[in-house]
Amino acid sequence: MAQGASKVLRSYTSGGWQVGEGDGAPLHDAVTGAEVARISSVGIDMAAALDHGRRVGGPALRELTFHQRAALLKALASHLRENRDELYALSAKTGATPGDSQFDIDGGIGVLFSYSSKGRRELPNDIVYVDGGVEPLGKGGTFQAQHIATPLRGVAVQINAFNFPAWGPLEKFAPAFLAGVPSLIKPASQTAYLTEKLVELIVNSGLLPEGSLQLISGSAGDLLDHVTGQDLVSFTGSASTAQKLRAHPAIVRNSVRFNAEADSLNCSILGPDATPGTTEFDLYVKQLVTEMTVKAGQKCTAIRRAFVPAQLLDDVTEAARERLAKIKVGNPANSDVRMGALASLEQREEVRRSLKALQGAGNIVFGDPEAVEVLDADAEKGAFLSPVLLQADPDRAEPHEVEAFGPVSTLMPYTSVEQVVDYAARGQGSLAGSVVSGDAEFAREVVLGVAPWHGRLLVLDADDAKESTGHGSPMPALVHGGPGRAGGGEEMGGIRGVLHHMQRTAVQASPRVLSQVTGRWVEGAPRRDEGTHPFRKSLAELKIGDAVVAGPRPVTDEDVAHFAEFTGDTFYAHTDEEAARENPLFGGIVAHGYLVVSFAAGLFVSPEPGPVLANYGLENLRFLTPVKPGDDLTVTLTCKQITPRENADYGEVRWDADVTNQNQESVAKYDVLTLVAKENR
Amino acid sequence: MAQGASKVLRSYTSGGWQVGEGDGAPLHDAVTGAEVARISSVGIDMAAALDHGRRVGGPALRELTFHQRAALLKALASHLRENRDELYALSAKTGATPGDSQFDIDGGIGVLFSYSSKGRRELPNDIVYVDGGVEPLGKGGTFQAQHIATPLRGVAVQINAFNFPAWGPLEKFAPAFLAGVPSLIKPASQTAYLTEKLVELIVNSGLLPEGSLQLISGSAGDLLDHVTGQDLVSFTGSASTAQKLRAHPAIVRNSVRFNAEADSLNCSILGPDATPGTTEFDLYVKQLVTEMTVKAGQKCTAIRRAFVPAQLLDDVTEAARERLAKIKVGNPANSDVRMGALASLEQREEVRRSLKALQGAGNIVFGDPEAVEVLDADAEKGAFLSPVLLQADPDRAEPHEVEAFGPVSTLMPYTSVEQVVDYAARGQGSLAGSVVSGDAEFAREVVLGVAPWHGRLLVLDADDAKESTGHGSPMPALVHGGPGRAGGGEEMGGIRGVLHHMQRTAVQASPRVLSQVTGRWVEGAPRRDEGTHPFRKSLAELKIGDAVVAGPRPVTDEDVAHFAEFTGDTFYAHTDEEAARENPLFGGIVAHGYLVVSFAAGLFVSPEPGPVLANYGLENLRFLTPVKPGDDLTVTLTCKQITPRENADYGEVRWDADVTNQNQESVAKYDVLTLVAKENR
Repeated sequence: MAQGASKVLRSYTSGGWQVGEGDGAPLHDAVTGAEVARISSVGIDMAAALDHGRRVGGPALRELTFHQRAALLKALASHLRENRDELYALSAKTGATPGDSQFDIDGGIGVLFSYSSKGRRELPNDIVYVDGGVEPLGKGGTFQAQHIATPLRGVAVQINAFNFPAWGPLEKFAPAFLAGVPSLIKPASQTAYLTEKLVELIVNSGLLPEGSLQLISGSAGDLLDHVTGQDLVSFTGSASTAQKLRAHPAIVRNSVRFNAEADSLNCSILGPDATPGTTEFDLYVKQLVTEMTVKAGQKCTAIRRAFVPAQLLDDVTEAARERLAKIKVGNPANSDVRMGALASLEQREEVRRSLKALQGAGNIVFGDPEAVEVLDADAEKGAFLSPVLLQADPDRAEPHEVEAFGPVSTLMPYTSVEQVVDYAARGQGSLAGSVVSGDAEFAREVVLGVAPWHGRLLVLDADDAKESTGHGSPMPALVHGGPGRAGGGEEMGGIRGVLHHMQRTAVQASPRVLSQVTGRWVEGAPRRDEGTHPFRKSLAELKIGDAVVAGPRPVTDEDVAHFAEFTGDTFYAHTDEEAARENPLFGGIVAHGYLVVSFAAGLFVSPEPGPVLANYGLENLRFLTPVKPGDDLTVTLTCKQITPRENADYGEVRWDADVTNQNQESVAKYDVLTLVAKENR
Repeated sequence: MAQGASKVLRSYTSGGWQVGEGDGAPLHDAVTGAEVARISSVGIDMAAALDHGRRVGGPALRELTFHQRAALLKALASHLRENRDELYALSAKTGATPGDSQFDIDGGIGVLFSYSSKGRRELPNDIVYVDGGVEPLGKGGTFQAQHIATPLRGVAVQINAFNFPAWGPLEKFAPAFLAGVPSLIKPASQTAYLTEKLVELIVNSGLLPEGSLQLISGSAGDLLDHVTGQDLVSFTGSASTAQKLRAHPAIVRNSVRFNAEADSLNCSILGPDATPGTTEFDLYVKQLVTEMTVKAGQKCTAIRRAFVPAQLLDDVTEAARERLAKIKVGNPANSDVRMGALASLEQREEVRRSLKALQGAGNIVFGDPEAVEVLDADAEKGAFLSPVLLQADPDRAEPHEVEAFGPVSTLMPYTSVEQVVDYAARGQGSLAGSVVSGDAEFAREVVLGVAPWHGRLLVLDADDAKESTGHGSPMPALVHGGPGRAGGGEEMGGIRGVLHHMQRTAVQASPRVLSQVTGRWVEGAPRRDEGTHPFRKSLAELKIGDAVVAGPRPVTDEDVAHFAEFTGDTFYAHTDEEAARENPLFGGIVAHGYLVVSFAAGLFVSPEPGPVLANYGLENLRFLTPVKPGDDLTVTLTCKQITPRENADYGEVRWDADVTNQNQESVAKYDVLTLVAKENR
């Protein structure tokens, strides 16, 4: 092949930009067919790139706390948002309309913002994640366990699909970064020029520690031969490639964590209540057409199988045809165009082949696979295709097995809940499904019936339509991935996606050691009561285990009667001796739980102004032993967890509160949540 | 081979006992060499067995709630405990001492009890598991999401190792059963006669729904060819078999959940503080010898690599030799015997081969692989082997790679924390590790350093030694499994192990539909206030969404002052106008949070005796807006979740409490936890 005019896309590995050897393979504009760039990774040292991630990126990331990584994600998101025009310009060449580009580019930036926020709110400002509660292992309390999660010491190899060159890399990168694991991104060649630009923006921002993000433009070469049990491989793409990678010798030999998101035959189910004229009927048809045409149907979450009650099949077909007829196909730069091109001519051929297979089980009711009217573009050179809607027999295999990865859906009738659940399951595992119905009981039956085959399910109705993000949109807070044909993987899902990059370890130890390992005070660990009330200590002075013991304070008959009268809480167990005796749990008058915690606060408080700014909450309060008039209460308050905020002059402190009676029995246990200043003023 | 005198072990599939065709392969008593049984699965229809589990076992299990399944596990555990003598009798033939048998048999029964208790305490009395919190997806609150988990609709295929013929099947079965997924157990042939007896006891108990447990005695045949994306395969055994199974075409093609626990080169690390004469020194040596000799070292969690500070190497070696010299090897029926036989003569040959490889990197310092004094048994016919301790160079590869699956460990010196962390990592993934040290900071450094390579870590010291369950014991509440060489799997871990058998699905819907799907009231869903106070309703009458609105009640200056004085909580923000103005969050006097929740209780309480028996706790309390004197409080209490107890005449009811001010701002939100009678008396 002669030397092309276009440049060879660069890779960013081992601390610098690399250019693959040779002329590279040409990449074409989906709309005009013109060459956009060339791609080659020949000569790039894959083993060295992995090693660079492990030796440079990983250690740098692990020095940061979760909150510090979250802050970097936010800064990065803002930087990309400021520079997104550069990405939009390239995105149009992939065949995307501005709306499609928004889905990809702003969607990806949104994932960064979301993970930043989740990290700050749901993760500790620390390097260790504490997973679940303390597990007591012995009756004496000297031997306990705590699961922790620590970042894997390898690299997250992220192999992405052509359809989301911005969102794809970013949704895989964000949770890995937050976990403290460096990423190595390998985009699909077809649209890699957009990912190259994205990585250029990221690298040039100077925000990320070197080695935390690398890019391979072009073939992965021998990359996977070098993965170890500390690396991860996540893949988005076809089911057949997923299978090949899953069985890769190095992945199998080293039990490498392998996560796949594969295209699936997602379904959308219309409820029998949603007859023509209902809001839900219109929502169903509109969503179906949207899912067919956004990204020209090149979404692994798009609706491929549209199940409707048999008696509504004609109505839905007619309404969908009407809507589809209004979709203008063509150059995405033209503002009248609603659907752009497929990503390549090859992709169009692939869809046409799948359509032939689907026609074996049914008929086309809208669109011509071979011809489409095109606005403002050359129909020959661009990869344009008409939206195609089929009707098919759901008892045939093809509609459940053949995926046409383009603007293609198949309508099928059903006659009962059991039947449509069975049809849905024939897809053998999907990323997403939807139910459109105003009947909550129908929705419940379908959701619980098809859930084992789905990673995400949307119930669309008049209530949520306005705020709904739609069938096809994965959300950073929700799991993305499905069982079986969909790859069996799970990405995002908020903090779940972070934990996928970490090793969970059960640590068994004495409370003293568990406190040391986790940075959180554990019941049974030593307490320090040095005379200074811990409420007088700023975050700079306060330490885990700092404690105060206060009391005893007697609880009298008069206290209980007065509290009942004052608060209005005249529950019989506090006010009526005779009735209280009949209560199977108390057998007599007991103090209000709220009285107990109020008295406890009166005991442990340090009244004068100081570093403690507020009590903002309480958690896990349990009343363990009834408090009776005549009991004496003592409270022990112990500093349990300290979370300084990165962007404020205070932070959260969690205190363990243990209220005991004169027999040293715990009557109430809970966590007190306070805001405490970083420095004493 | 001539017809043997011993019977062919039976399988239990498709609703009945089956006997494999032919004479079967002989299985030998590990102590005497006598034939114990024969084994064959020839002719057993594996596809039918899977189908039976899916069509009969699964639906029967899914009709039960988590609590009902938990109750069955408890009944089953009690039944097995009553009949354990039958298991002990057979266990001796595997070479096990009574102590070894206890580890296997009582350990397995203990897993059932543990899962029963966890299921009752940590799972809802329902068929749907609600995973994590509600995720808001829109600002208006009409579109939210909730992750749920539902049982996979397939069969959990459980392939077990020879060393724990009772514990192995039970630790895999318990979480699957609790999840609602039927099990198909395939024990290793060598000791399958014990598993056959176990399953016989279970089947004869009549406790379990038919199809929820099946047994294949003998080869798995074409079993795996028939697994689908809804089935699971979990395997315990060698790393090489794990690799073969992981790459099985049906497992790869259908993204079948595959979980492996493989033998690993587990380490135990002695701290530099633990010099001779310290408790920790003795603990280290004692534990090392125990791990070498329990089950004749045939534990996938046993210590293979013993790292000690270089300056303590001689001391540890000497002390270990002394202890090892006292171990009597021989017939486990003889009460003087501390270590029995390996599982088979083949197993012994395998260990001897591995020992040869290990000797390439070091020397034997105790034991002779070719000769051992045997008590009360024939050393030729039984699979006896001396404990063998080596010293080796940790910079050689062999000690980190070659596993001798018998009473074999290797001592190695180290000189710094960084170095021993690096050595530990060279095992490339372990099930378990231990640190023996009284120095909590050393323990922290090692634990956080090696955690990415470990599923479980024990820190042993003087504090926890008495209650410690030891390096080698997996616990039902803790994850069992490790990365890399250890198979990359995770079993047990309490409810985590249950969720491994379920599909997690993000459900996006309106609050009304989410409430219907999850059986829990979700904020924004309709409330019902029909006039009857919900505290007057028994569990039989109460419904999710039943609500009461009460108030307003004014909060006065006098209330705040009085509450401060009465409770003693005189924090300046409640008592000192001038100081309170300086508080950055309040800017003036605010009411106590405890006052707010006490007044709220006074508003929502229904004082007369009735079905509500007690308020046993409070969760997730957050004070959202400061309450100032002059504010009016209103509280809305809504029934959120109902959990009837299986074995009591009451249950738990969780209420959503939302306290608002005169501007309809929420000032406090929390969950109130109550006990409510099933019936009105």
